[in-house]
Amino acid sequence: MPLAPWRSPLSRALHRNRSLVYARYLQLATVRSNHRPANRTVVFRGFFDDETNQLKFVVDGRSEKAEQIEQNPWAEACWYFPKTREQFRLLGTLTLIGESHPDSTLAKARQIAWQDLSDSARVQYLWPHPGQSRTDAIAFSLPLPDATKPLPQFCLLLLSATQVDHLELRGDPQNRQRYLLADDRTWEMQDLNP
Amino acid sequence: MPLAPWRSPLSRALHRNRSLVYARYLQLATVRSNHRPANRTVVFRGFFDDETNQLKFVVDGRSEKAEQIEQNPWAEACWYFPKTREQFRLLGTLTLIGESHPDSTLAKARQIAWQDLSDSARVQYLWPHPGQSRTDAIAFSLPLPDATKPLPQFCLLLLSATQVDHLELRGDPQNRQRYLLADDRTWEMQDLNP
Repeated sequence: MPLAPWRSPLSRALHRNRSLVYARYLQLATVRSNHRPANRTVVFRGFFDDETNQLKFVVDGRSEKAEQIEQNPWAEACWYFPKTREQFRLLGTLTLIGESHPDSTLAKARQIAWQDLSDSARVQYLWPHPGQSRTDAIAFSLPLPDATKPLPQFCLLLLSATQVDHLELRGDPQNRQRYLLADDRTWEMQDLNP
Repeated sequence: MPLAPWRSPLSRALHRNRSLVYARYLQLATVRSNHRPANRTVVFRGFFDDETNQLKFVVDGRSEKAEQIEQNPWAEACWYFPKTREQFRLLGTLTLIGESHPDSTLAKARQIAWQDLSDSARVQYLWPHPGQSRTDAIAFSLPLPDATKPLPQFCLLLLSATQVDHLELRGDPQNRQRYLLADDRTWEMQDLNP
């Protein structure tokens, strides 16, 4: 599949906001098993590859969101860029790639994602079970894990968007575009009222 | 009800990040009627009053989120503070206060919220139906609405949290606290693994 048409404004936003480290943070909403929403900040780790338009994240397979994704793969990412005052909302489905994923390309991508992490990010996967009652601090003092071999709980997470809403607050009036993935896998773009 | 115990760290975060105008922006997740999540940036407008611990927002009653809230009032707000590197996740229920709300205190609060808006924020409620196919730009050139009388489509939105998750990325290891509203309406606090 060719580069989606929303990739170009998104790349521009990333470039123009590159001085802010937190411009690579976005909020990922999923649905809990009790039908209540969940929402948390995640770090954008780039695109899986140019042909798929999939956004990459990494997650701990022991976290609540890993469980939520198994039950309902739908997610909406909300990404606000402070410097250029624009927002991207990306609605789509998540794919969780854990240990022993059958697809060898995805398994390889998981390994590369692990290698690309910093030591301080990798060691967090050795921490006690996230979200459980606090364990003694000693459990957090750990030797660094092998940088070449992902820990079992390390997962790569891919978001495949089927709808992207781009709102630019600058401009009078504001500009808003919606990109929709049609059944023939082409993207349709529409100007919307902000 | 007294001030919830999470109000104090949240006030501190707001104060320490006050130089960033966008530290008052947060992401509000709801659930669509087709069980997919929705997520968008909203502006924090303060607390409804100190006794209720309810967060205030304003919305256009014609927007999709107003419809989503009617069907499923659950929401999770995700609020990241860039300067202090901390995140609050507030899970709870939303109350939408539109025109002719029966509760006079809430109706009054809606009117005050309208008066507190800037002219440029108020005029947006006269814009064409949000999210619909773009209308001719002429429709956006409008006289300012009456600052004392809310337009029918103007709604006040209140979030009543029942669970608040506070994560501080600074610190080695990170700190994470969860606040839960118990059946007796008191808050229980627990230290969690990050």
